[in-house]
Amino acid sequence: MPPRPGTAVALALRVARQSAPSSSIKSTSSTFVRQPSFPQCRQFGNLFKPPTPARNASPSTTQRTHWQYFSQTATLALSGRPLPQRRSVFLNFAYRTAAVFGTGVGFVGILLAAFFVYDSTTYKESITIGDCHVSETALSPPRGGPKNLPIVRALLDDDDSEQTRMRKDKPRLVILGGGWGSVALLKQLNPDDYHVTVVSPANYFLFTPMLPSATVGTLELRSLVEPIRRILSRVGGHFLRASAEDVDFSQKLVEVSQTDASGQEARFYIPYDKLVVAVGSVTNPHGVKGLEHCHFLKDINDARKIRNQVIWNLELANLPTTSDSERRRLLSFVVSGGGPTGVEFAAELFDLLNEDLTRRFPRLLRNEISVHIIQSRGHILNTYDETLSKYAEERFARDQVVILTNSRVQEVTEDKIIFSQKAEDGSTVTKEIPMGFCLWSTGVSQAPVCKRIADKLGSTQNNRHALETDTHLRLNGTPLGDVYAIGDCSTVQNNVADHIVSFLRGLAFKHGKDPETLELHFYDWRDVAVDVKKRFPQAVSHLKRLDRLFHDFDKDQSGTLSFGELRELLKQIDSKLTSLPATAQRANQQGIYLANKFNKLAHCAPGLKANDIRDGDLDEACYKAFEYHNLGSLAYIGNSAIFDLGNGWGFTGGLWAVYAWRSVYFAQSVGVRTRVLMAMDWLKRGLFGRDLMSF
Amino acid sequence: MPPRPGTAVALALRVARQSAPSSSIKSTSSTFVRQPSFPQCRQFGNLFKPPTPARNASPSTTQRTHWQYFSQTATLALSGRPLPQRRSVFLNFAYRTAAVFGTGVGFVGILLAAFFVYDSTTYKESITIGDCHVSETALSPPRGGPKNLPIVRALLDDDDSEQTRMRKDKPRLVILGGGWGSVALLKQLNPDDYHVTVVSPANYFLFTPMLPSATVGTLELRSLVEPIRRILSRVGGHFLRASAEDVDFSQKLVEVSQTDASGQEARFYIPYDKLVVAVGSVTNPHGVKGLEHCHFLKDINDARKIRNQVIWNLELANLPTTSDSERRRLLSFVVSGGGPTGVEFAAELFDLLNEDLTRRFPRLLRNEISVHIIQSRGHILNTYDETLSKYAEERFARDQVVILTNSRVQEVTEDKIIFSQKAEDGSTVTKEIPMGFCLWSTGVSQAPVCKRIADKLGSTQNNRHALETDTHLRLNGTPLGDVYAIGDCSTVQNNVADHIVSFLRGLAFKHGKDPETLELHFYDWRDVAVDVKKRFPQAVSHLKRLDRLFHDFDKDQSGTLSFGELRELLKQIDSKLTSLPATAQRANQQGIYLANKFNKLAHCAPGLKANDIRDGDLDEACYKAFEYHNLGSLAYIGNSAIFDLGNGWGFTGGLWAVYAWRSVYFAQSVGVRTRVLMAMDWLKRGLFGRDLMSF
Repeated sequence: MPPRPGTAVALALRVARQSAPSSSIKSTSSTFVRQPSFPQCRQFGNLFKPPTPARNASPSTTQRTHWQYFSQTATLALSGRPLPQRRSVFLNFAYRTAAVFGTGVGFVGILLAAFFVYDSTTYKESITIGDCHVSETALSPPRGGPKNLPIVRALLDDDDSEQTRMRKDKPRLVILGGGWGSVALLKQLNPDDYHVTVVSPANYFLFTPMLPSATVGTLELRSLVEPIRRILSRVGGHFLRASAEDVDFSQKLVEVSQTDASGQEARFYIPYDKLVVAVGSVTNPHGVKGLEHCHFLKDINDARKIRNQVIWNLELANLPTTSDSERRRLLSFVVSGGGPTGVEFAAELFDLLNEDLTRRFPRLLRNEISVHIIQSRGHILNTYDETLSKYAEERFARDQVVILTNSRVQEVTEDKIIFSQKAEDGSTVTKEIPMGFCLWSTGVSQAPVCKRIADKLGSTQNNRHALETDTHLRLNGTPLGDVYAIGDCSTVQNNVADHIVSFLRGLAFKHGKDPETLELHFYDWRDVAVDVKKRFPQAVSHLKRLDRLFHDFDKDQSGTLSFGELRELLKQIDSKLTSLPATAQRANQQGIYLANKFNKLAHCAPGLKANDIRDGDLDEACYKAFEYHNLGSLAYIGNSAIFDLGNGWGFTGGLWAVYAWRSVYFAQSVGVRTRVLMAMDWLKRGLFGRDLMSF
Repeated sequence: MPPRPGTAVALALRVARQSAPSSSIKSTSSTFVRQPSFPQCRQFGNLFKPPTPARNASPSTTQRTHWQYFSQTATLALSGRPLPQRRSVFLNFAYRTAAVFGTGVGFVGILLAAFFVYDSTTYKESITIGDCHVSETALSPPRGGPKNLPIVRALLDDDDSEQTRMRKDKPRLVILGGGWGSVALLKQLNPDDYHVTVVSPANYFLFTPMLPSATVGTLELRSLVEPIRRILSRVGGHFLRASAEDVDFSQKLVEVSQTDASGQEARFYIPYDKLVVAVGSVTNPHGVKGLEHCHFLKDINDARKIRNQVIWNLELANLPTTSDSERRRLLSFVVSGGGPTGVEFAAELFDLLNEDLTRRFPRLLRNEISVHIIQSRGHILNTYDETLSKYAEERFARDQVVILTNSRVQEVTEDKIIFSQKAEDGSTVTKEIPMGFCLWSTGVSQAPVCKRIADKLGSTQNNRHALETDTHLRLNGTPLGDVYAIGDCSTVQNNVADHIVSFLRGLAFKHGKDPETLELHFYDWRDVAVDVKKRFPQAVSHLKRLDRLFHDFDKDQSGTLSFGELRELLKQIDSKLTSLPATAQRANQQGIYLANKFNKLAHCAPGLKANDIRDGDLDEACYKAFEYHNLGSLAYIGNSAIFDLGNGWGFTGGLWAVYAWRSVYFAQSVGVRTRVLMAMDWLKRGLFGRDLMSF
């Protein structure tokens, strides 16, 4: 009974047999049919009617039921028939390889077919949605609030489904901004506890760490962004594309603005029960003139502009009518700021010029290209461990990327950049570089809306660069549990001293004592320390040796700490606490922290409110304070990457490190979609290189 | 000797064994090791030292050479050991499936690993190109020509390599434009016959047929474009990003312009031996007011603008402060022009709104969306067979896409479109539709540079819409063999009558006769017909029944055709010849035609020139006239596609036709890169849908 090969395995066997020299085919096929396949058939026969002799097992037998026939052929189809054994190792090897290859190809084919089957189900025929109910308030929101603007108490899709209808009565959680913090919050939040509304001028989340890769086409723009709505769908949230302008804390209203089709600005209020400010930051101009001649790298559009500009410069430099000096200027790329963004951009740019430009443009251009990094500090990547930044510098030096340290940009003009450089002897000299492209990436500063909020809150906000929050991420100066601030736009205030002092004052007055005359014994001090640790997790590491601290600051050796001595002690701890870095990592951790807290609050808050725990400080009552864990930072520096794991740990490496660097971000990426796209892009780059097209 | 499973096959077996119920494992593994694997080992043993008994075959044996050991393990690794046979059909089936699956996964794994290995070789370390020689003329081109502009006789990369240096002395082929015609030409041209220079304002080739798909994100922009330089690399050509402004035919100079970095326009000359004008066409405004409120769809940037506008409208419509009428306006999409572009855009737009919008936006929006197509003719797709366009209309009707036929747009304003519609009774009524988006796709008209050229050539150019060429695609009025025009910017002149008449005149004068009195007998007429067929391939189909034609036009039954009668005959044929469609297909065929001719000319021209064949008409001497073959046209109309194969043939279909439509364009796509990207995009759409992000 010759087998009917139907599957990949069988196919592969056929391939193998064809691929073998004709001389061997006969004997092969004989092996193929004779020796192992018959015993099998007999077995199958036995399966169905044990006593039946072998010959009856052949398909010709008629007593078979359809079911038996099916199951047998199915099994036969994938039968584990042994591959033919030739006396030649190579022949055998060929068989095996062909078998595996054939099966593999078949497998891929099946996957492909499966996709097409699935794909064919994704084309919706025209669907008519019947009337859908929309509340009157949603269609024409009533006016009110301090500025008598429309107050959006209901949204167009509040009644679209059962779930959304159910969420209408939940507390309103309004999130300003769609960056790392917000998205982390949204991904962690319980679906049914809040009526979530996100307000942002961009309807996508941007995976900022990879932005430099997008400026030269290593990654495509759309691989770095994820629609906010897609992320929101899990919590059934709503999205409004508008910009936050101001907040009214007393009436709990966010004022947002949107320019309509005719270019008119329309403003309205969004009411909130809980507000999360996560609007991020803006580029820091450092008061330098002529920044309109620079590119920035905050947004996805910046990336596209940069890509076009770079290619445009190359095209101009390629024209024979371009003078030699002009050509050199066009091909002089300057990066102002030696932070991760600037450095990674320089690295990516260099890759583009080195790997792709050389293939498609005249060699002359490659020779006249120059890349400069202007850094105000003594090293680039100065937040990294020094050995690492040194490594990066050597690396760039080898790649003919010039690094100008201790240099401050004075002014940028259309065709050159003027900067002053500190020499070894401390004297500063003013220099200039002709440039055809300048990237400005010198840190961040506060967004206008944050300034407005800070001003409103007055004395409780004393930081000119960010909104101050307590360690529960609550915006200082606002009613407890109403407003939170996370991400670049915020900073956690570590006012250990003030806090504890006021706390002690309260204590002292309770005991009817004057706080100034209060004397703490060691056990009092220990209690204070516990309280501090609880409220300021960042301070824990500085409160290890309580006894030593006590002893050190007990100046008068009285065995007790006076009020003044205690303040001194805590002040010193304050000074040791550094403010958190403005990184995606921090925003992400804060977002997750808030989500977890909100999830908890949604359930334990009511009960606590009832019996007014800790004078209404619900956050503290049911969740711990925020603690930042540094997971290290990494940077791509051109065919090589550096990893700083904190506390002096870290490593550098070549290509393998680059792959590692990629896989880290691949894992951190927001969703399946972006991961797939990223992978596709890297595949593209590998196969076809970056395309030098500008549009 | 227990086998060391190392490959996918072995792995799969392990999987199978695990997947089997524990009870069976023991017996399985015994089958696994015992019965089939030992005989094999013996075989291998024999391979190396025939007399050796089996036990020596085990790896422990020490007489083996490394090579033997390797080859054996390699063979073993891929050994064709039979899969274990269980008494249960299902268990067996499970084994087989697991084996195939395992092998498949392994295979994919191997592919992946292979890619990474390859990828790792694509990262270039910093390379220093030594000095490269660039001729003085290239660096500072000498001035000259009628306007005393720089004449670019040498390019920056003329001396970059041996090949380019060799090509310097070849005839200079200058191609204006980088569309279908140019690219077809470039892909067909012999690499070493010409010094090729392409001049175009865009440094990429755009795959226009798929442009509508890019407007909604079914395909990504970069999947539709291919860098011209990549296409040029095969023929070692040069690319200059500039726009052609004018041509000086006497001095053989193309005048091109380019705006430099400071926004100044720089002009220069490019000398040519052969010039191909393939600059395409521009949108036809039809003198309608307010087109600045419309979008067009000629360029890749148009596609992005459209995509952003559509999403922006949705976002605005999503705001609760947007009034209901305004919302309806924002969601009213109007397409002016029922040609393939307009129709396919409408279809794609409808897909977006139907498949993706409904998932992410309030249901209200879906209900208030309207799509209109305004068509001046009686049917949309009027170039297609009527049954097909009817089918399309029904299709759209079902999808609630309103088609307004016999309608002409009068004016477009910021928020509405005013048009006049012819009623059944011939009366015209003026109507208006409020609109938030309008696409203007009502045919093409002549590009400015073509107008300039036509004016220069005066009476030899009488077509107001395109440059006239003879059937050898030579621009009428220019020295033979110097200038060619192909694609949308050109039209092939079928002046059979004039041509033949002048031809006869020559003949008549040779015989010392007055042409007016010339009488043609049937055999003379046959010769004339042959000549006509040769020069005007399009006319062949109209010259089938020579005798009948002769008889019909021999009015006076004289048995001969008088000069006048002949002219009448040929005039009638003229009238039957239609001008070629302005399609990618035609441009493509013309490009290939020119390439083949140039390849021939490069070799036979010199010889022919020597002995001055056919008064210097080299083209005619060594290559046939251009003949257009209609390969049919196809269009996507929303989850369905129509194919018009010409002469009344054609078919329509649902999803399968859509896949067919895609595969046609997939096959026609310019290169591997674009194909891979297209496939990736379709995969993306299938898995994640279209993303509704605008930037």
